Amino acid sequence: MPLNYRFRDPALAALALTHRSVGKPNNERMEFLGDALLGAFVAEMLYEAHPKASEGELSRLRAQLVNGQALAEIARKLELGNALTLGPGELKSGGFRRDSILADAFEASLAAVFLDGGLEACRQVVRELFGERVGALPRSSKDAKTRLQEWLQGHGHALPQYELIDSHGEDHAKTFDVRCTVSEPQVHSAEASGSNRRQAEQDAAEIVLARLTAQARNT
Amino acid sequence: MPLNYRFRDPALAALALTHRSVGKPNNERMEFLGDALLGAFVAEMLYEAHPKASEGELSRLRAQLVNGQALAEIARKLELGNALTLGPGELKSGGFRRDSILADAFEASLAAVFLDGGLEACRQVVRELFGERVGALPRSSKDAKTRLQEWLQGHGHALPQYELIDSHGEDHAKTFDVRCTVSEPQVHSAEASGSNRRQAEQDAAEIVLARLTAQARNT
Repeated sequence: MPLNYRFRDPALAALALTHRSVGKPNNERMEFLGDALLGAFVAEMLYEAHPKASEGELSRLRAQLVNGQALAEIARKLELGNALTLGPGELKSGGFRRDSILADAFEASLAAVFLDGGLEACRQVVRELFGERVGALPRSSKDAKTRLQEWLQGHGHALPQYELIDSHGEDHAKTFDVRCTVSEPQVHSAEASGSNRRQAEQDAAEIVLARLTAQARNT
Repeated sequence: MPLNYRFRDPALAALALTHRSVGKPNNERMEFLGDALLGAFVAEMLYEAHPKASEGELSRLRAQLVNGQALAEIARKLELGNALTLGPGELKSGGFRRDSILADAFEASLAAVFLDGGLEACRQVVRELFGERVGALPRSSKDAKTRLQEWLQGHGHALPQYELIDSHGEDHAKTFDVRCTVSEPQVHSAEASGSNRRQAEQDAAEIVLARLTAQARNT
Protein backbone atom coordinates (compact mmCIF):
# COMPACT_ATOMS: atom_id res chain seq x y z
CA MET A 1 0.00 0.00 0.00
CA PRO A 2 1.93 3.05 -1.17
CA LEU A 3 1.24 6.58 0.10
CA ASN A 4 -2.22 7.69 -1.04
CA TYR A 5 -1.06 10.88 -2.67
CA ARG A 6 -0.04 11.68 -6.22
CA PHE A 7 2.91 14.04 -6.41
CA ARG A 8 2.96 16.80 -8.99
CA ASP A 9 6.68 17.08 -8.42
CA PRO A 10 8.17 13.59 -8.08
CA ALA A 11 11.54 15.10 -7.20
CA LEU A 12 10.11 16.11 -3.81
CA ALA A 13 8.99 12.56 -3.13
CA ALA A 14 12.42 11.29 -4.11
CA LEU A 15 14.25 13.80 -1.92
CA ALA A 16 12.13 12.72 1.05
CA LEU A 17 13.53 9.23 0.63
CA THR A 18 17.16 10.30 0.31
CA HIS A 19 19.15 9.48 3.41
CA ARG A 20 21.99 11.69 4.57
CA SER A 21 24.46 8.87 3.85
CA VAL A 22 24.10 9.90 0.19
CA GLY A 23 25.45 13.39 0.93
CA LYS A 24 23.54 16.61 0.29
CA PRO A 25 20.78 17.36 -0.50
CA ASN A 26 19.03 14.78 1.66
CA ASN A 27 15.83 14.41 3.62
CA GLU A 28 16.97 15.84 6.97
CA ARG A 29 15.44 19.28 6.60
CA MET A 30 12.20 17.77 5.33
CA GLU A 31 12.14 15.46 8.31
CA PHE A 32 12.20 18.50 10.62
CA LEU A 33 9.20 19.95 8.83
CA GLY A 34 7.32 16.66 8.55
CA ASP A 35 7.80 15.90 12.22
CA ALA A 36 6.20 19.24 13.13
CA LEU A 37 3.27 18.78 10.76
CA LEU A 38 2.66 15.25 11.95
CA GLY A 39 2.69 16.41 15.57
CA ALA A 40 0.09 19.06 14.81
CA PHE A 41 -2.28 16.85 12.83
CA VAL A 42 -2.12 14.01 15.33
CA ALA A 43 -2.70 16.55 18.12
CA GLU A 44 -5.82 17.67 16.29
CA MET A 45 -7.11 14.10 15.93
CA LEU A 46 -6.52 13.35 19.60
CA TYR A 47 -8.11 16.62 20.68
CA GLU A 48 -11.25 15.64 18.79
CA ALA A 49 -11.31 11.97 19.71
CA HIS A 50 -10.59 12.42 23.42
CA PRO A 51 -12.66 15.38 24.55
CA LYS A 52 -12.13 14.55 28.21
CA ALA A 53 -8.44 13.77 28.13
CA SER A 54 -6.18 16.15 30.01
CA GLU A 55 -3.25 17.86 28.36
CA GLY A 56 -0.92 15.29 29.93
CA GLU A 57 -3.01 12.44 28.66
CA LEU A 58 -3.11 13.90 25.16
CA SER A 59 0.69 14.17 25.20
CA ARG A 60 1.01 10.61 26.35
CA LEU A 61 -1.38 9.34 23.67
CA ARG A 62 0.51 11.25 21.00
CA ALA A 63 3.79 9.76 22.15
CA GLN A 64 2.19 6.33 21.76
CA LEU A 65 1.31 7.09 18.14
CA VAL A 66 4.29 9.20 17.12
CA ASN A 67 7.54 7.49 18.04
CA GLY A 68 10.33 5.92 16.04
CA GLN A 69 8.99 2.40 16.23
CA ALA A 70 5.40 3.29 15.36
CA LEU A 71 6.47 5.48 12.45
CA ALA A 72 8.82 2.81 11.14
CA GLU A 73 5.90 0.40 11.15
CA ILE A 74 3.86 2.81 9.03
CA ALA A 75 6.85 3.33 6.72
CA ARG A 76 7.02 -0.43 6.22
CA LYS A 77 3.32 -0.60 5.36
CA LEU A 78 3.93 2.15 2.84
CA GLU A 79 6.87 0.14 1.49
CA LEU A 80 9.23 3.06 1.84
CA GLY A 81 12.20 0.81 2.57
CA ASN A 82 12.61 -0.35 -1.01
CA ALA A 83 12.28 3.19 -2.30
CA LEU A 84 15.00 4.67 -0.08
CA THR A 85 18.15 6.11 -1.55
CA LEU A 86 21.01 5.22 0.75
CA GLY A 87 24.74 5.70 0.54
CA PRO A 88 26.77 2.52 -0.13
CA GLY A 89 27.67 2.08 3.54
CA GLU A 90 24.08 2.12 4.76
CA LEU A 91 23.02 0.00 1.84
CA LYS A 92 25.47 -2.70 2.84
CA SER A 93 24.57 -2.62 6.50
CA GLY A 94 20.85 -2.91 5.77
CA GLY A 95 19.89 0.69 6.50
CA PHE A 96 16.62 0.23 4.61
CA ARG A 97 15.45 -1.94 7.50
CA ARG A 98 16.47 0.42 10.31
CA ASP A 99 13.61 1.93 12.31
CA SER A 100 15.19 5.36 12.59
CA ILE A 101 15.90 5.66 8.87
CA LEU A 102 12.40 4.49 7.99
CA ALA A 103 10.70 6.78 10.50
CA ASP A 104 12.69 9.77 9.24
CA ALA A 105 11.80 8.96 5.64
CA PHE A 106 8.14 8.74 6.57
CA GLU A 107 8.20 12.15 8.28
CA ALA A 108 10.09 13.65 5.36
CA SER A 109 7.49 12.18 2.99
CA LEU A 110 4.76 14.02 4.88
CA ALA A 111 6.70 17.25 4.40
CA ALA A 112 6.98 16.41 0.71
CA VAL A 113 3.19 16.06 0.48
CA PHE A 114 2.83 19.41 2.20
CA LEU A 115 5.36 21.14 -0.06
CA ASP A 116 3.77 19.60 -3.13
CA GLY A 117 0.07 19.81 -2.30
CA GLY A 118 -0.38 22.10 0.68
CA LEU A 119 -1.53 21.82 4.26
CA GLU A 120 -4.86 20.17 3.57
CA ALA A 121 -3.33 17.43 1.43
CA CYS A 122 -0.82 16.62 4.15
CA ARG A 123 -3.53 16.65 6.79
CA GLN A 124 -5.64 14.19 4.79
CA VAL A 125 -2.72 11.80 4.41
CA VAL A 126 -2.08 11.90 8.17
CA ARG A 127 -5.76 11.41 8.96
CA GLU A 128 -5.99 8.39 6.70
CA LEU A 129 -2.85 6.80 8.09
CA PHE A 130 -3.61 7.49 11.74
CA GLY A 131 -7.42 7.31 11.84
CA GLU A 132 -7.57 3.68 12.78
CA ARG A 133 -4.69 3.98 15.22
CA VAL A 134 -6.31 6.91 17.00
CA GLY A 135 -9.58 4.97 17.17
CA ALA A 136 -7.83 1.96 18.65
CA LEU A 137 -6.30 3.85 21.56
CA PRO A 138 -7.73 2.86 24.89
CA ARG A 139 -10.19 5.43 26.12
CA SER A 140 -8.73 5.67 29.53
CA SER A 141 -11.38 5.88 32.18
CA LYS A 142 -8.80 5.37 34.86
CA ASP A 143 -7.13 8.38 36.35
CA ALA A 144 -3.40 8.97 36.10
CA LYS A 145 -2.58 7.97 39.69
CA THR A 146 -4.32 4.64 39.16
CA ARG A 147 -2.61 4.06 35.84
CA LEU A 148 0.79 4.94 37.31
CA GLN A 149 0.22 2.58 40.22
CA GLU A 150 -0.87 -0.22 37.91
CA TRP A 151 2.09 0.30 35.62
CA LEU A 152 4.55 0.16 38.53
CA GLN A 153 2.89 -2.90 40.05
CA GLY A 154 2.74 -4.60 36.66
CA HIS A 155 6.51 -4.11 36.34
CA GLY A 156 7.24 -5.17 39.92
CA HIS A 157 8.33 -1.73 41.09
CA ALA A 158 7.76 0.23 44.29
CA LEU A 159 4.77 2.57 44.47
CA PRO A 160 5.09 6.33 43.91
CA GLN A 161 5.40 8.93 46.64
CA TYR A 162 3.36 12.10 46.62
CA GLU A 163 4.41 15.14 48.62
CA LEU A 164 2.90 18.53 49.11
CA ILE A 165 5.77 20.92 48.46
CA ASP A 166 3.96 24.17 49.09
CA SER A 167 0.55 25.77 49.16
CA HIS A 168 -0.17 29.44 48.73
CA GLY A 169 -3.09 31.81 48.40
CA GLU A 170 -6.01 32.34 50.73
CA ASP A 171 -8.02 29.52 52.22
CA HIS A 172 -10.83 29.59 49.69
CA ALA A 173 -8.44 29.87 46.74
CA LYS A 174 -5.31 27.95 47.55
CA THR A 175 -2.81 26.70 45.01
CA PHE A 176 -1.10 23.42 45.84
CA ASP A 177 2.33 22.47 44.55
CA VAL A 178 2.89 18.74 44.70
CA ARG A 179 5.59 16.34 43.66
CA CYS A 180 5.27 12.75 42.49
CA THR A 181 8.40 10.60 42.73
CA VAL A 182 9.12 7.05 41.70
CA SER A 183 12.34 5.32 42.66
CA GLU A 184 12.24 2.35 40.27
CA PRO A 185 13.17 1.35 37.58
CA GLN A 186 14.93 4.70 37.79
CA VAL A 187 14.26 7.89 39.73
CA HIS A 188 11.72 10.16 38.06
CA SER A 189 9.94 13.04 39.69
CA ALA A 190 7.57 15.68 38.42
CA GLU A 191 5.90 18.67 39.98
CA ALA A 192 2.48 20.08 39.28
CA SER A 193 0.30 22.79 40.75
CA GLY A 194 -3.43 23.25 40.94
CA SER A 195 -6.28 24.64 42.94
CA ASN A 196 -7.03 21.11 44.03
CA ARG A 197 -4.38 18.95 45.62
CA ARG A 198 -5.71 15.71 44.18
CA GLN A 199 -5.81 17.15 40.68
CA ALA A 200 -2.24 18.40 41.01
CA GLU A 201 -1.20 14.89 42.06
CA GLN A 202 -2.98 13.47 39.01
CA ASP A 203 -1.13 15.90 36.76
CA ALA A 204 2.24 15.06 38.33
CA ALA A 205 1.46 11.33 38.06
CA GLU A 206 0.62 11.77 34.37
CA ILE A 207 4.01 13.34 33.68
CA VAL A 208 5.90 10.62 35.55
CA LEU A 209 3.90 7.91 33.76
CA ALA A 210 4.66 9.50 30.40
CA ARG A 211 8.39 9.45 31.19
CA LEU A 212 8.30 5.85 32.35
CA THR A 213 6.45 4.64 29.28
CA ALA A 214 8.64 6.68 26.94
CA GLN A 215 11.70 5.17 28.56
CA ALA A 216 10.27 1.65 28.40
CA ARG A 217 9.63 2.12 24.69
CA ASN A 218 13.18 3.27 24.05
CA THR A 219 14.85 0.34 25.75
CA MET B 1 -2.70 45.37 19.34
CA PRO B 2 -5.20 42.58 19.85
CA LEU B 3 -5.11 39.31 17.91
CA ASN B 4 -5.88 39.98 14.24
CA TYR B 5 -8.70 37.48 13.98
CA ARG B 6 -12.43 37.85 14.45
CA PHE B 7 -13.98 34.88 16.24
CA ARG B 8 -17.30 33.49 15.08
CA ASP B 9 -17.58 31.77 18.43
CA PRO B 10 -16.35 34.12 21.17
CA ALA B 11 -16.70 31.32 23.74
CA LEU B 12 -13.67 29.63 22.17
CA ALA B 13 -11.62 32.79 22.56
CA ALA B 14 -12.73 33.08 26.17
CA LEU B 15 -11.92 29.45 26.98
CA ALA B 16 -8.42 29.95 25.58
CA LEU B 17 -7.87 32.61 28.22
CA THR B 18 -9.21 30.58 31.11
CA HIS B 19 -6.45 29.38 33.41
CA ARG B 20 -6.68 26.08 35.20
CA SER B 21 -6.84 27.91 38.55
CA VAL B 22 -10.50 28.57 37.64
CA GLY B 23 -11.25 24.84 37.55
CA LYS B 24 -12.59 23.00 34.51
CA PRO B 25 -13.06 23.62 31.66
CA ASN B 26 -9.88 25.58 31.16
CA ASN B 27 -7.33 26.23 28.44
CA GLU B 28 -4.95 23.31 29.09
CA ARG B 29 -6.19 21.03 26.33
CA MET B 30 -6.22 23.93 23.87
CA GLU B 31 -2.67 24.78 24.84
CA PHE B 32 -1.61 21.25 23.81
CA LEU B 33 -3.19 21.75 20.42
CA GLY B 34 -1.96 25.31 19.96
CA ASP B 35 1.58 24.37 20.85
CA ALA B 36 1.57 21.70 18.13
CA LEU B 37 0.11 24.03 15.51
CA LEU B 38 2.54 26.80 16.38
CA GLY B 39 5.45 24.38 16.10
CA ALA B 40 4.34 23.30 12.65
CA PHE B 41 3.74 26.77 11.24
CA VAL B 42 6.98 28.16 12.61
CA ALA B 43 8.77 25.11 11.21
CA GLU B 44 7.30 25.94 7.83
CA MET B 45 8.44 29.56 8.02
CA LEU B 46 11.96 28.57 9.01
CA TYR B 47 12.13 25.90 6.33
CA GLU B 48 11.32 28.56 3.73
CA ALA B 49 13.45 31.36 5.15
CA HIS B 50 16.56 29.28 5.80
CA PRO B 51 16.97 27.02 2.79
CA LYS B 52 20.52 26.13 3.75
CA ALA B 53 20.02 25.54 7.45
CA SER B 54 20.51 22.01 8.68
CA GLU B 55 17.86 20.18 10.63
CA GLY B 56 19.72 20.95 13.86
CA GLU B 57 19.94 24.61 12.98
CA LEU B 58 16.23 24.76 12.17
CA SER B 59 15.45 23.21 15.56
CA ARG B 60 17.66 25.70 17.31
CA LEU B 61 16.10 28.64 15.49
CA ARG B 62 12.63 27.40 16.35
CA ALA B 63 13.56 27.10 20.01
CA GLN B 64 14.69 30.73 19.86
CA LEU B 65 11.27 31.81 18.60
CA VAL B 66 9.04 29.39 20.46
CA ASN B 67 9.86 29.37 24.16
CA GLY B 68 8.04 30.55 27.25
CA GLN B 69 9.68 33.93 27.38
CA ALA B 70 9.25 34.74 23.70
CA LEU B 71 5.63 33.64 23.69
CA ALA B 72 4.87 35.64 26.83
CA GLU B 73 6.27 38.69 25.08
CA ILE B 74 3.88 38.16 22.19
CA ALA B 75 1.03 37.58 24.62
CA ARG B 76 1.82 40.95 26.22
CA LYS B 77 1.78 42.68 22.84
CA LEU B 78 -1.60 41.09 22.22
CA GLU B 79 -2.70 42.34 25.64
CA LEU B 80 -3.82 38.89 26.69
CA GLY B 81 -2.94 39.52 30.35
CA ASN B 82 -5.93 41.75 31.02
CA ALA B 83 -8.27 39.35 29.29
CA LEU B 84 -7.23 36.28 31.31
CA THR B 85 -9.68 34.54 33.58
CA LEU B 86 -7.79 33.43 36.67
CA GLY B 87 -8.83 31.82 39.92
CA PRO B 88 -8.75 34.11 42.98
CA GLY B 89 -5.39 32.75 44.16
CA GLU B 90 -3.61 33.45 40.87
CA LEU B 91 -5.39 36.76 40.60
CA LYS B 92 -3.99 37.88 43.93
CA SER B 93 -0.50 36.67 43.24
CA GLY B 94 -0.37 38.48 39.89
CA GLY B 95 -0.76 35.44 37.64
CA PHE B 96 -1.69 37.68 34.72
CA ARG B 97 1.92 38.82 34.64
CA ARG B 98 3.49 35.37 34.77
CA ASP B 99 5.35 34.28 31.65
CA SER B 100 4.14 30.70 31.77
CA ILE B 101 0.48 31.64 32.13
CA LEU B 102 0.74 34.19 29.33
CA ALA B 103 2.58 31.84 27.00
CA ASP B 104 0.02 29.10 27.59
CA ALA B 105 -2.85 31.49 26.95
CA PHE B 106 -1.22 32.56 23.70
CA GLU B 107 -0.82 28.98 22.50
CA ALA B 108 -4.39 28.18 23.53
CA SER B 109 -5.57 31.24 21.60
CA LEU B 110 -3.95 29.87 18.46
CA ALA B 111 -5.86 26.64 18.98
CA ALA B 112 -9.04 28.70 19.38
CA VAL B 113 -8.40 30.38 16.02
CA PHE B 114 -7.89 26.97 14.46
CA LEU B 115 -11.04 25.51 16.02
CA ASP B 116 -13.02 28.57 15.01
CA GLY B 117 -11.64 29.33 11.57
CA GLY B 118 -9.60 26.36 10.41
CA LEU B 119 -5.99 25.60 9.60
CA GLU B 120 -5.43 28.40 7.16
CA ALA B 121 -6.75 31.07 9.53
CA CYS B 122 -4.44 29.85 12.28
CA ARG B 123 -1.51 29.72 9.90
CA GLN B 124 -2.10 33.31 8.82
CA VAL B 125 -2.18 34.51 12.42
CA VAL B 126 1.10 32.74 13.13
CA ARG B 127 2.69 34.11 9.97
CA GLU B 128 1.70 37.66 10.84
CA LEU B 129 2.93 37.39 14.40
CA PHE B 130 6.19 35.65 13.61
CA GLY B 131 7.06 37.06 10.21
CA GLU B 132 9.22 39.85 11.51
CA ARG B 133 10.80 37.65 14.15
CA VAL B 134 11.74 35.02 11.58
CA GLY B 135 13.18 37.73 9.36
CA ALA B 136 15.24 39.13 12.22
CA LEU B 137 16.98 35.83 13.00
CA PRO B 138 20.67 35.88 12.25
CA ARG B 139 21.41 34.06 9.05
CA SER B 140 24.19 32.06 10.48
CA SER B 141 27.11 31.87 8.14
CA LYS B 142 29.23 30.33 10.86
CA ASP B 143 29.28 26.61 11.21
CA ALA B 144 28.11 24.86 14.36
CA LYS B 145 31.59 24.01 15.65
CA THR B 146 32.56 27.67 15.42
CA ARG B 147 29.36 28.83 17.10
CA LEU B 148 29.78 26.27 19.89
CA GLN B 149 33.36 27.35 20.44
CA GLU B 150 32.38 31.01 20.52
CA TRP B 151 29.53 30.37 22.92
CA LEU B 152 31.79 28.46 25.31
CA GLN B 153 34.55 31.06 25.12
CA GLY B 154 32.03 33.85 25.58
CA HIS B 155 30.86 32.20 28.79
CA GLY B 156 34.37 31.44 30.02
CA HIS B 157 34.08 27.68 29.64
CA ALA B 158 36.46 24.99 28.44
CA LEU B 159 36.41 24.04 24.76
CA PRO B 160 34.57 20.96 23.48
CA GLN B 161 36.15 17.59 22.81
CA TYR B 162 35.44 15.67 19.61
CA GLU B 163 36.06 11.95 19.41
CA LEU B 164 35.65 9.43 16.66
CA ILE B 165 33.69 6.60 18.26
CA ASP B 166 33.50 4.29 15.31
CA SER B 167 33.67 4.13 11.55
CA HIS B 168 32.20 1.46 9.38
CA GLY B 169 31.59 0.66 5.73
CA GLU B 170 34.08 0.34 2.93
CA ASP B 171 36.81 2.84 2.26
CA HIS B 172 34.99 4.79 -0.42
CA ALA B 173 31.74 4.88 1.57
CA LYS B 174 32.56 5.06 5.24
CA THR B 175 30.19 6.20 7.95
CA PHE B 176 31.74 8.03 10.88
CA ASP B 177 30.22 8.06 14.35
CA VAL B 178 31.53 10.97 16.39
CA ARG B 179 30.86 12.42 19.79
CA CYS B 180 31.05 16.02 20.94
CA THR B 181 31.39 16.59 24.68
CA VAL B 182 31.50 19.74 26.77
CA SER B 183 32.35 19.64 30.46
CA GLU B 184 31.17 23.12 31.50
CA PRO B 185 28.86 24.64 32.65
CA GLN B 186 27.58 21.08 32.87
CA VAL B 187 28.43 17.89 31.01
CA HIS B 188 26.62 17.55 27.71
CA SER B 189 27.48 15.15 24.97
CA ALA B 190 25.89 14.27 21.68
CA GLU B 191 26.63 11.75 18.98
CA ALA B 192 26.15 12.08 15.26
CA SER B 193 27.02 10.02 12.22
CA GLY B 194 27.72 10.89 8.66
CA SER B 195 29.63 9.99 5.56
CA ASN B 196 31.97 12.85 6.36
CA ARG B 197 33.67 13.08 9.71
CA ARG B 198 33.70 16.85 9.77
CA GLN B 199 30.00 17.05 8.96
CA ALA B 200 29.21 14.56 11.71
CA GLU B 201 31.17 16.74 14.13
CA GLN B 202 29.18 19.77 12.99
CA ASP B 203 25.93 17.91 13.61
CA ALA B 204 27.02 16.80 17.06
CA ALA B 205 28.18 20.33 17.89
CA GLU B 206 24.79 21.69 16.79
CA ILE B 207 22.98 19.39 19.22
CA VAL B 208 25.26 20.29 22.12
CA LEU B 209 24.90 23.98 21.35
CA ALA B 210 21.12 23.67 21.26
CA ARG B 211 21.16 22.06 24.70
CA LEU B 212 23.45 24.69 26.15
CA THR B 213 21.39 27.57 24.83
CA ALA B 214 18.11 25.94 25.89
CA GLN B 215 19.52 25.49 29.37
CA ALA B 216 20.82 29.04 29.49
CA ARG B 217 17.36 30.32 28.55
CA ASN B 218 15.71 28.30 31.31
CA THR B 219 17.97 29.50 34.10
